[in-house]
Amino acid sequence: MLDKINISELKKYIGEKVSVAGFVNTIRNQGGIKFVLLRDSTGFVQCVVMKSNNQAFEQISNLHLESVVKITGILKEERQAPGGFEVLIEEVGVLSLSEPELPIPVNQDKIIDEVEISKRFDHRWLDLRNPDNLRLFKAWTILEEGFRRVYLQENFIQVYTPSFMSTASESGAEVFEVNYFDRKAYLAQSPQFYKQMAMASGFDKVFISTPLFRAEPSYTTRHVTEFTGWDFEISYITSHHDLMDLEEKLIISSFSLLNEKLRLDLKIPASPFPRISMEEAKSILKSIQVPSEKDGDLSNFEEIELSKYVKEKYDSDFVFVTDYPITVRPFYHMRHKDNPKMTMSFDLIYRGLEVTTGAQREHRVAILEKQALEKGMNLEELKDYIDFFRYGCPPHGGVGIGPARIIKQIFNLSSIKEAIFLPRDVKRLTP
Amino acid sequence: MLDKINISELKKYIGEKVSVAGFVNTIRNQGGIKFVLLRDSTGFVQCVVMKSNNQAFEQISNLHLESVVKITGILKEERQAPGGFEVLIEEVGVLSLSEPELPIPVNQDKIIDEVEISKRFDHRWLDLRNPDNLRLFKAWTILEEGFRRVYLQENFIQVYTPSFMSTASESGAEVFEVNYFDRKAYLAQSPQFYKQMAMASGFDKVFISTPLFRAEPSYTTRHVTEFTGWDFEISYITSHHDLMDLEEKLIISSFSLLNEKLRLDLKIPASPFPRISMEEAKSILKSIQVPSEKDGDLSNFEEIELSKYVKEKYDSDFVFVTDYPITVRPFYHMRHKDNPKMTMSFDLIYRGLEVTTGAQREHRVAILEKQALEKGMNLEELKDYIDFFRYGCPPHGGVGIGPARIIKQIFNLSSIKEAIFLPRDVKRLTP
Repeated sequence: MLDKINISELKKYIGEKVSVAGFVNTIRNQGGIKFVLLRDSTGFVQCVVMKSNNQAFEQISNLHLESVVKITGILKEERQAPGGFEVLIEEVGVLSLSEPELPIPVNQDKIIDEVEISKRFDHRWLDLRNPDNLRLFKAWTILEEGFRRVYLQENFIQVYTPSFMSTASESGAEVFEVNYFDRKAYLAQSPQFYKQMAMASGFDKVFISTPLFRAEPSYTTRHVTEFTGWDFEISYITSHHDLMDLEEKLIISSFSLLNEKLRLDLKIPASPFPRISMEEAKSILKSIQVPSEKDGDLSNFEEIELSKYVKEKYDSDFVFVTDYPITVRPFYHMRHKDNPKMTMSFDLIYRGLEVTTGAQREHRVAILEKQALEKGMNLEELKDYIDFFRYGCPPHGGVGIGPARIIKQIFNLSSIKEAIFLPRDVKRLTP
Repeated sequence: MLDKINISELKKYIGEKVSVAGFVNTIRNQGGIKFVLLRDSTGFVQCVVMKSNNQAFEQISNLHLESVVKITGILKEERQAPGGFEVLIEEVGVLSLSEPELPIPVNQDKIIDEVEISKRFDHRWLDLRNPDNLRLFKAWTILEEGFRRVYLQENFIQVYTPSFMSTASESGAEVFEVNYFDRKAYLAQSPQFYKQMAMASGFDKVFISTPLFRAEPSYTTRHVTEFTGWDFEISYITSHHDLMDLEEKLIISSFSLLNEKLRLDLKIPASPFPRISMEEAKSILKSIQVPSEKDGDLSNFEEIELSKYVKEKYDSDFVFVTDYPITVRPFYHMRHKDNPKMTMSFDLIYRGLEVTTGAQREHRVAILEKQALEKGMNLEELKDYIDFFRYGCPPHGGVGIGPARIIKQIFNLSSIKEAIFLPRDVKRLTP
């Protein structure tokens, strides 16, 4: 490895000769002195070179912004420099010279009108150099780690579910079709059937992190054609509340880790999160003069208003909305024993945005078939799925979580696309 | 959650009333006594019921194999039972009744002729109930965890690279085509370009776990159309040896964890692993009368023979074969300064099977373009890729790792498909 020190660790080396490497963020001239602000993945450091150091001075003069250099010199205290120290340049090694003109500005405040967003995404590799953007992906890594700590502690098995399916899953609409040798395959919209299969296989507790695909021609800030899905599925639950209990652990674990590792100031939610049935939610919304926009379901506006209410009343950024009516839920959601019009299901809403859908599943073949028929589905087409439950299957349930949505909400991003490394939508397949 | 104890934890409760739940593995009748061998994801326990307990006796009599039940009773020592104890059944709760005839036998020694393999995969959810199969996925989970421990310790960022690409990557052959609204998209064969892009974005160290897609009409035991790829890419390397150093840490971490958590008896390799140049490898093979089957590359047979040699000579299950000639490597592999016919690349071979390909990448635009042209490639088609390196990019390199191949070798599986949760090949898209 190149002999260099991360900028964040420099302060241990004041008075010593150090090497740092990174991108040339800015160059400032002040008579016979040049100041280089160097950026690596851990921070910024000011480096300074005098004209008396002919070679280095000339090298710096010939640099274009965003070139990658290694700088060696004495690290000395300097109150006026960011961080309180600077590197007095002795040697410069040019590792990669940038072209003179950058297609988009790097590391400047984001310009948010639509044209500029598109141009930023066209040059996403430069856009991501902005430390605010880099931080989003540090946050993703920590968020997943926080989840995994709970999963591993509780002996979950990770499964890698396939993207290729032989038939269009669930709805049939909004599925991408693949030319698969002499026939068609379809890209998974959800690992739903596969994770339930793992329960039928006796895996007991599984988690999944996988790309999912939706051919929705949607242009909202919440929709992309490919997104990372995090799922878990567990056996031997007695109701959907067991799933909410587990998801709370995941969120608390990862939010605590985010605060610790990324020095965020997230409110760590207390368990249990508020759990409000759809019926109650509608009546709360009515009481605060928010008219119902969707029957038995919440519109995005209603989600936002409900979140505001919950924030005020319970000081919680999270709210579970539970017990959706069967009309808005798929056939495989289990129904309440004492109310067959209501599913044992929930959504988790985080600061006005749905980030999770979960439910206990119906694992009893006769009831599952009956529910499918009621929804007008074809049992022959569902055969492969329903067969999973014919030879013994524990009661089970699980959730699908959209991590990009959680990241969007944590950082107040204008669009889910800002939270995605390389977003894909109807129009965008590059870079 | 259902009130129950994992079978593996039962021994703490001898003499107490316990509840266990799982699949009915076998039922044995002995006059007025029935023995149920119950299986959960942690083990087996024998449960016994006397005719005097009328209700439970009858319930057990009516069970089909592989039904899911909850059994409650006193756990008592019994030398003749597996594990040294058994549950004296008081109550039985039938959670899910299996159909009377199983399409394949569950939890019996595998039948390995070709017809049976296909039938097993047709009923993969039953096939996976075999504890030997379940163990493979426990091993995957631990393997990934072992890798992640190193990544997180060294401040890697996880990136989630897209599957959708606008053009067929690298070769153009063997790529799946997707109907993407009014045009075509292609499924990623490798996250190669994207992870290099992360280096151009200043991410410094990234890792990836993602499905990858290859439209190869191959029928070998090593090929599937969709597989899980683990990649890393790091900046500021000085040669491909930095990559091998890191991969050794990953392997040692995960193999140690596998021994610890799964009580395997893997040989923990010592660092550094043997590193043999392609030239040396060919000369070793010649010296042991193995004729060269591929120019500048190793056939599968040669890999096996070289592994045997290395095992004997260095007592190592792993060997890095380094410095492949440019003829067998892609245009973006960096070449040796003192030998422009040789790339700074390597494969890792584990007990006769290639499990990793890695290289330092060429990050200097002029040289990269020259190398692409030499390979007969079209610079216009590569523009999006080459642009990544125009505005400053640190020297970097990385690897692509096939975890299913590692699992196959650890457990001596006959085919990579046995290591995959739901394998996909030319013929198979279900379940």
